[in-house]
Amino acid sequence: MNYDLDGADEVLRRTPGTLRALLTDLPDEWLHGREADDAWSPYQVCGHLLHIEECDWIDRTRVILEHGTTQPFVPVDREAGFARFAGWSIDALLDRFAEQRATNLDVLQKLVKPSDLDQQGLHPEFGPVTLAQLLATWVVHDFNHLHQIVKTMAKEYGDAVGPWRAYLPILGAT
Amino acid sequence: MNYDLDGADEVLRRTPGTLRALLTDLPDEWLHGREADDAWSPYQVCGHLLHIEECDWIDRTRVILEHGTTQPFVPVDREAGFARFAGWSIDALLDRFAEQRATNLDVLQKLVKPSDLDQQGLHPEFGPVTLAQLLATWVVHDFNHLHQIVKTMAKEYGDAVGPWRAYLPILGAT
Repeated sequence: MNYDLDGADEVLRRTPGTLRALLTDLPDEWLHGREADDAWSPYQVCGHLLHIEECDWIDRTRVILEHGTTQPFVPVDREAGFARFAGWSIDALLDRFAEQRATNLDVLQKLVKPSDLDQQGLHPEFGPVTLAQLLATWVVHDFNHLHQIVKTMAKEYGDAVGPWRAYLPILGAT
Repeated sequence: MNYDLDGADEVLRRTPGTLRALLTDLPDEWLHGREADDAWSPYQVCGHLLHIEECDWIDRTRVILEHGTTQPFVPVDREAGFARFAGWSIDALLDRFAEQRATNLDVLQKLVKPSDLDQQGLHPEFGPVTLAQLLATWVVHDFNHLHQIVKTMAKEYGDAVGPWRAYLPILGAT
């Protein structure tokens, strides 16, 4: 599928509700479990998503539209949300994420026309990238972290399922 | 984490709402996309989940409680839901799934005590399994199919993300 502003919007506006349905009022044993010492809990994933929502997608869209490839993107700190939102309840995190997502989709609609999608920016590591690639990454980034949350939760029962493990590929997912 | 009736209930009762948030009113291009000819679309996954919800978990729980290892489980047809629910809207599928899930959790609560969890049944392929293993599999089966849905949707933009693919492990997930 090619990137498309309307098709992407259909997915992006669903993520806050999906996270709420999955995580609101979830007991701590599920919410704060991690599959390894250096892995993120479902709660931490939400902190990351909110931080990135605040500082990445729309900022980089503006950099592409205003500066093209003359100004590289500022690298993002993937774990900055952990300290920034320390102590926030999961409800507070998800409420703020939902607000920021709605704002960002509104801004995007006003800011970007289909004819802008081929414009290029400069990624500090990858070199030239297009606006369409950045905005498609926003969508896949949501799915990537939904996947991370469900695999983290699934692995809590990795031993408990016994021999059924053979039919549950998520238990081997990385 | 060991299997626990209350902890599992916390997850199982969230799945219908999670699927609704993710899939209700989703355009057909996302809902019916498949990553390969023999792979399932998000819509097909929901048909599978509903079929399994109707015929697997509670039936097998009863077989274990009533017959122990003297009567093997009847194998389930993983794709039977595709024909059975052909033509149903995604809303109808998800409504029926939510009803069946609520009924099943209610039945489970009345049927099973913590002291029953070590009881054994006979899986036609694996041999002896415990009730706790069956019920833990119910939970991980939900996550496995949520994972399948999000990876299927993510891969629609597998090319569109360009070089960001390197940072999105879901695009290589099986």
